[in-house]
Amino acid sequence: MNNILIIGAGLCGSLLALRMAQRGFQVTLVEKRPDLRKVTQDAGRSINLALSDRGLRGLRLAGVEEEAKKLCIPMNGRMIHDKAGNTFLSPYSGRKDEYINSISRPGLNMLLLDEAEKMPNVNIIFNHACEEVDLENASATFRDFNSKKETTITADVIFGTDGAGSAVRKSMFESHKFLFSFSQQWLSHGYKELEIPAAENNGYRTYKNALHIWPRGEDMLIALPNLDGSFTVTLFLPYENSDYCFANLTTPEMVHEYFNKEFPDVVEMIPNLAEEFFGNPTGPLGTVKCSPWNSFGKVLLMGDAAHAIVPFYGQGMNASFEDVVVLDEILEKYVPSRPPQREGVDWDTIFREYETLRKKDTDAIADLAVDNFHEMKEHTAMEIFQRKRKLETAFEAEFPEEYYSKYSLVTFKESITYSEALKRGRAQDKAILNLLDDGKLTEEMSLKEKLELVKKETEAILHDDEVAFG
Amino acid sequence: MNNILIIGAGLCGSLLALRMAQRGFQVTLVEKRPDLRKVTQDAGRSINLALSDRGLRGLRLAGVEEEAKKLCIPMNGRMIHDKAGNTFLSPYSGRKDEYINSISRPGLNMLLLDEAEKMPNVNIIFNHACEEVDLENASATFRDFNSKKETTITADVIFGTDGAGSAVRKSMFESHKFLFSFSQQWLSHGYKELEIPAAENNGYRTYKNALHIWPRGEDMLIALPNLDGSFTVTLFLPYENSDYCFANLTTPEMVHEYFNKEFPDVVEMIPNLAEEFFGNPTGPLGTVKCSPWNSFGKVLLMGDAAHAIVPFYGQGMNASFEDVVVLDEILEKYVPSRPPQREGVDWDTIFREYETLRKKDTDAIADLAVDNFHEMKEHTAMEIFQRKRKLETAFEAEFPEEYYSKYSLVTFKESITYSEALKRGRAQDKAILNLLDDGKLTEEMSLKEKLELVKKETEAILHDDEVAFG
Repeated sequence: MNNILIIGAGLCGSLLALRMAQRGFQVTLVEKRPDLRKVTQDAGRSINLALSDRGLRGLRLAGVEEEAKKLCIPMNGRMIHDKAGNTFLSPYSGRKDEYINSISRPGLNMLLLDEAEKMPNVNIIFNHACEEVDLENASATFRDFNSKKETTITADVIFGTDGAGSAVRKSMFESHKFLFSFSQQWLSHGYKELEIPAAENNGYRTYKNALHIWPRGEDMLIALPNLDGSFTVTLFLPYENSDYCFANLTTPEMVHEYFNKEFPDVVEMIPNLAEEFFGNPTGPLGTVKCSPWNSFGKVLLMGDAAHAIVPFYGQGMNASFEDVVVLDEILEKYVPSRPPQREGVDWDTIFREYETLRKKDTDAIADLAVDNFHEMKEHTAMEIFQRKRKLETAFEAEFPEEYYSKYSLVTFKESITYSEALKRGRAQDKAILNLLDDGKLTEEMSLKEKLELVKKETEAILHDDEVAFG
Repeated sequence: MNNILIIGAGLCGSLLALRMAQRGFQVTLVEKRPDLRKVTQDAGRSINLALSDRGLRGLRLAGVEEEAKKLCIPMNGRMIHDKAGNTFLSPYSGRKDEYINSISRPGLNMLLLDEAEKMPNVNIIFNHACEEVDLENASATFRDFNSKKETTITADVIFGTDGAGSAVRKSMFESHKFLFSFSQQWLSHGYKELEIPAAENNGYRTYKNALHIWPRGEDMLIALPNLDGSFTVTLFLPYENSDYCFANLTTPEMVHEYFNKEFPDVVEMIPNLAEEFFGNPTGPLGTVKCSPWNSFGKVLLMGDAAHAIVPFYGQGMNASFEDVVVLDEILEKYVPSRPPQREGVDWDTIFREYETLRKKDTDAIADLAVDNFHEMKEHTAMEIFQRKRKLETAFEAEFPEEYYSKYSLVTFKESITYSEALKRGRAQDKAILNLLDDGKLTEEMSLKEKLELVKKETEAILHDDEVAFG
């Protein structure tokens, strides 16, 4: 019970490899693509990500938090841009020490690969694509990209961390030996990455320490800062059936017309707008859920392979790193000893307990991420939601120990689970919106009185749901 | 635009074939299995079904309602059996004319095939399994079960009515030319059919005009009457991880021990219990959702192929027949004329409009059916739910025009959609359960006062949800 095969050396797979090696397992980490430390990166494929408390906890567990922080740019809030080019900053929290970080995906991945490679018990193989997994025998077949030859690797257990399009998951889907629940849901929007290049001397062309949003109802543009002074910009746009959509933005003139109309302050910051628009791919936005995550106590899905989510809560990577934390706690319980006292590990029990603990939370963050898509593109521009946000920020600033908004619960409060954050956060939102709509939060009330009323209403909502739905 | 290929001659496909032929289209109906009018039926595969108002509306549209009613046995309510063998009848509605019907699946299917076959413009081909659909060209390849030869049939449009395991849907799932959202969710329970044979002279061994339920928390037995005096019994039991589950009921002794303990009044009615238990297959219980239902304006999924649901609302067949009604209304709008004035039918528009109208409703009945699984196995035995049910039955009896329970909205009120029934029905349930829990429906109140309070609370719940979730 010493040999572990991890398929997929992205963020989740490389952190898992590092942590499992620290626990004394013999790890083989296989990646389909070439070693990203040795090749130039593709343009237009999610260059930076939001790293927050749950993700940092995973990095801390493996002792790489401080190194990772060197790659981070703090973002204190959402900088909202209206059509006239006016901006206002909506902080992520009323507490000063709560912010999220922009980090380079390849930068962080390289750091994790470097750290994993330092371990004597980790062997990393690149350019080998998984073709099929023999689930009952923990054995996987790979094709070498260069020689085109097939090889088979057998282990005691396999972890599938091969991302949203997981080949390991596909083997489970196609197996007829157990019932595999599976869901893939696509949004009607796709995304396209663009770049705001750095100004002179690596300066930033717009405010550095924010996640920029241009909310336009059906479409949205966002931008996250990079260390070199550039911003990675992402356009979220319907594929079809809209005045402007990917189906009809087919000429440079149309692209410029659209950007000049909707995002005039952006046009001057992207010198090669049309070239980038047509040069970069259009990506789909999907949610994947499945169950069971493990088959025969031999193979376990983790990270995006088990639960791919849309990017609108900035939690994809954070959720995957939290997977490693949750698994690690269970391993600590069942396999605390160091090798070679490793015989008889009951992986089946470990894998089942992991899913029982974790599945409800990754389902919750998947649903929250879809909710936030609508919040970002529509609600951030709506008056009642701005009043709610302002009230919540005041609660958090005045009563930092007593109030956490849904966003804060999800993003900064890693001591509670995603599913609890969803339940409490939605009830709070419903309470505040209805109290505002009913005019029950009056000018005469103190902030403390408002907080007490919101808390009371939240509890009533949770109670009524409990009675009706259990 | 005259040739229509329908793949799958089950209940939905054969009703659709009949109706499309009545509209003047040239119909080819292809079925994988042999002609069920000419072979003996398999035991243990959903022998009877619940037919209610939405289904009857579809049969009426095609002029076969009266013939179908001859196959029906009215069921006026749920007959609940407790462990001691006590029974009580919980009516489906407080209105006397609202009941559901037990009907033989093969019997109804034969009737529909007979009627379709009478049409000069219908050609039915059996024993041909669909292997693949060329979605862009409305062409499908079949394998002849007898000769093993492949044939290809091309049409103007194809309808996939080939059930929960649809081959047509599989072609959509595997196409890489569009984004196909897809979900299959399995319950942790499976089902097994058994039979209570007729008494002497085709008599019934228990009350004929009810759907019998033995609710036992995690497991449940139900029974529906057949015309010949027998009942088809279905056991719903967890696959594993339960004191009694399919994984551990492995011997005749275990089966008898389980039935004697949980369903003592049934044991004497099933003479060959163990033989049937081990002779009949164990079936899975799954929900399938997908979107889009149409590809390239050439192929449309309908019935279980588009939306397979679990059987706990007795709405699977009814939803499929309602599909035909909804499509027919759209056809009436766009293609009212009779052939040969049939050129230039805009199927793409028809198919999109159909999905826009219909998808939210089939999603709703899928969710309601899963909810009802829990209601049937747990809630029917719980005191607060029995008080709710009693109150609702009184509302319906006293104020038949003013109150419809969730069950009645779904089952008897075909003028409102499943999605409206879900929204209003859940709000009503929540209102009543909370009013009961809070002790606000007091003895002193008249029934009318109680009804007004429930209505007011329901509206408040709907309003609060609207403010918070739009």
